[in-house]
Amino acid sequence: MRLSRYFLPVLKETPSEAQIVSHRLMLRAGMIRQEAAGIYAWLPLGFRVLKKIEQIVREEQNRAGAIELLMPTLQLADLWRESGRYDDYGQEMLRITDRHERELLYGPTNEEMITEIFRAYVRSYKDLPKNLYHIQWKFRDEQRPRFGVMRGREFLMKDAYSFDIDEAAGRHSYNQMFVAYLRTFARMGLKAIPMRAETGPIGGDLSHEFIVLAETGESAVFCDKRVLDLPIPGDETNYDADLSEVVTQWSTLYACTEDVHDPARYEAETKPEDRLETRGIEVGQVFFFGDKYSKPMKAVVAGPDGAERPAQMGSYGVGVSRLLGAIIEASHDDKGIIWPEEVAPFGVAILSLKAGDPAVDAACETAYAALTKAGKEPLYDDTDERAGGKFATADLIGLPWQLIVGPKGIANGEVELKNRRSGERQTLPLDAALKALGA
Amino acid sequence: MRLSRYFLPVLKETPSEAQIVSHRLMLRAGMIRQEAAGIYAWLPLGFRVLKKIEQIVREEQNRAGAIELLMPTLQLADLWRESGRYDDYGQEMLRITDRHERELLYGPTNEEMITEIFRAYVRSYKDLPKNLYHIQWKFRDEQRPRFGVMRGREFLMKDAYSFDIDEAAGRHSYNQMFVAYLRTFARMGLKAIPMRAETGPIGGDLSHEFIVLAETGESAVFCDKRVLDLPIPGDETNYDADLSEVVTQWSTLYACTEDVHDPARYEAETKPEDRLETRGIEVGQVFFFGDKYSKPMKAVVAGPDGAERPAQMGSYGVGVSRLLGAIIEASHDDKGIIWPEEVAPFGVAILSLKAGDPAVDAACETAYAALTKAGKEPLYDDTDERAGGKFATADLIGLPWQLIVGPKGIANGEVELKNRRSGERQTLPLDAALKALGA
Repeated sequence: MRLSRYFLPVLKETPSEAQIVSHRLMLRAGMIRQEAAGIYAWLPLGFRVLKKIEQIVREEQNRAGAIELLMPTLQLADLWRESGRYDDYGQEMLRITDRHERELLYGPTNEEMITEIFRAYVRSYKDLPKNLYHIQWKFRDEQRPRFGVMRGREFLMKDAYSFDIDEAAGRHSYNQMFVAYLRTFARMGLKAIPMRAETGPIGGDLSHEFIVLAETGESAVFCDKRVLDLPIPGDETNYDADLSEVVTQWSTLYACTEDVHDPARYEAETKPEDRLETRGIEVGQVFFFGDKYSKPMKAVVAGPDGAERPAQMGSYGVGVSRLLGAIIEASHDDKGIIWPEEVAPFGVAILSLKAGDPAVDAACETAYAALTKAGKEPLYDDTDERAGGKFATADLIGLPWQLIVGPKGIANGEVELKNRRSGERQTLPLDAALKALGA
Repeated sequence: MRLSRYFLPVLKETPSEAQIVSHRLMLRAGMIRQEAAGIYAWLPLGFRVLKKIEQIVREEQNRAGAIELLMPTLQLADLWRESGRYDDYGQEMLRITDRHERELLYGPTNEEMITEIFRAYVRSYKDLPKNLYHIQWKFRDEQRPRFGVMRGREFLMKDAYSFDIDEAAGRHSYNQMFVAYLRTFARMGLKAIPMRAETGPIGGDLSHEFIVLAETGESAVFCDKRVLDLPIPGDETNYDADLSEVVTQWSTLYACTEDVHDPARYEAETKPEDRLETRGIEVGQVFFFGDKYSKPMKAVVAGPDGAERPAQMGSYGVGVSRLLGAIIEASHDDKGIIWPEEVAPFGVAILSLKAGDPAVDAACETAYAALTKAGKEPLYDDTDERAGGKFATADLIGLPWQLIVGPKGIANGEVELKNRRSGERQTLPLDAALKALGA
């Protein structure tokens, strides 16, 4: 992408309404714009990151055997009356009346709707297991929306729902998602730690939250710091095999948010030198809740014996839009964002220090063509802004690499290559720089 | 994908509520499920087609220089008061009140919001042209939702918005989208004909609808049938060049929907043998409306002379979810859907006629692995349903090819390859069949 043709409205000033660094940086880097309290437009740069994150989530869901579909944003109130949650949900549910006075709502989650879909088509244990997911906009009418996309009202969530014939099979589905989440967050460059959690309005008695450690996190967390060094399941993971060993390994060391923290147990189970007390951001949560929805909603399947029983269900959420905030909280410096490679909106910034200079233009065009062809998604700053402004913007938007092309260097056949994370710079011939970038 | 692990709830019966063939076939093929009047869940098969169509639209928008972002589904009522459309829009607008009694609405279109974004950041002609688009769910509270996804209430639309310094530049942006639409619909296997149109609530005095001819279409159309043979602009199209010749070529021959049809002009401009009177489905519409929104909303830019003027705008919509219906209306037979290759949910069905037979299983697995590796997205029917049912389902869901593997054929080292569109079958060795499929 040529910056002269792009739409990247970076801000020079620090927006006063933003209380946390990720919100500030997303506004300054021209990633989002608030359209109403807790409702954001995703400007082109933010949109690209959102799509990268969504795609990683999708790939890992698919790998674990979940099947993608897409449920609508609006739901019938009557569906929520079947489960009993319509009245329970309170003011966070956005209730809507259409022109024919039918009661609708903007879905805050989809347990009821997926159960309705399941019961319409599935009759037999032979069709199980099934794990169905979608990545769709949700709405929760927060009393005080804040922290940008971290606690917005309209937000993008991946939610998966598993259906099994019995509890043991249901636990296996839960374990599949648990492992998929370990992989998902690791691919985004995050250390997300599963922590035993309360189940809240979703229900059930088994749940883990996946928490990214960050000092600006919304809740205090207490953990055995050896959990940070546990291995992430690899590409070769067989999701059909028993995964309970991985889950046990990841859920044995003490790790709790303040909601369920037990100081006595903490002291008994951790050595003083292993204790880590910090704050965390929830980026995902998994639940197993058995027949909480399938029983009242009559989502039953016949077992091998012919007898019908309610499906055993779990649900599994990832806060896709919230993850942008979490990643920035975990990866930035005082100059701006530092994107992990896998979620970076572009792979490399090409900074022309003298647009219009024939030798500089030629080198930049060569680099742009080669990097584009190699799938490195370069963002070519071909504008006539001064060098200082270009450096500041490149650091702010945080692409992993900067390829700096100036007239003096080019006179010697050389360019500069800067790594955004380490700050390391090297001067080298253009060909070598392109090779280093994989082009 | 192995069918035994997929979620493809095909229906044997023809649903009585469906009045048109695309709606019937989408329900029978397990592509959609109605969750409320005009509100659908996209089941896995339907979702895959939706994504394919969305991706073609995206690629052609990007090729034409439009930049993707994403605006939220909910908007502030006050924004629509600025343009004067809040009261005008009538009952099709879904109006919502949140917990703090703020007035919101579910966006039916985004002229106001994109103008608000533009005016917040763009000041100078140097930043123009800009064409910003998104692919997002919209809501129009239709009085009588019907025809499945063809006239739903919650629907997926691509809408692009161009901003230019003057009318000539604005016309160029219009022409870019006009050409992009010709390419977009052609890639989906559709003949979509641009027809001069009324501008309705969007405004302006220049507009074309892109109409797919189908006897079940919503409006009568009258055209010179030579328009069907005009060439589609190729991959080499240069969107920076003057495109007015292409637009003129495609908008000279008579082609009108009933709304603007002029019988006298029709008779004067067409030869009797060239007249085609049929029905059509609108799949896209382009508008140039100058300063209709930028003037009241004060989206002004400074020209080279330093004087500020309202940006010249156009908007460009494609009915992404509606396109599934339109494609099926244009491409089906009495057995089911016939997907054009580019939008097919899977490239080929592998039909095992005897699951559990070692030789059949081995051949199917070989084919499945090879076709997957070659990116052909096979759907492998590995279930133990009888052959007749498998053939019927494969014809119904309409994948372009069927690779039929039975015990008798395999004893001779042979499989059958069937083309869904032509119905042509050939018996050939497995290797040759895979080669024919590009694996």
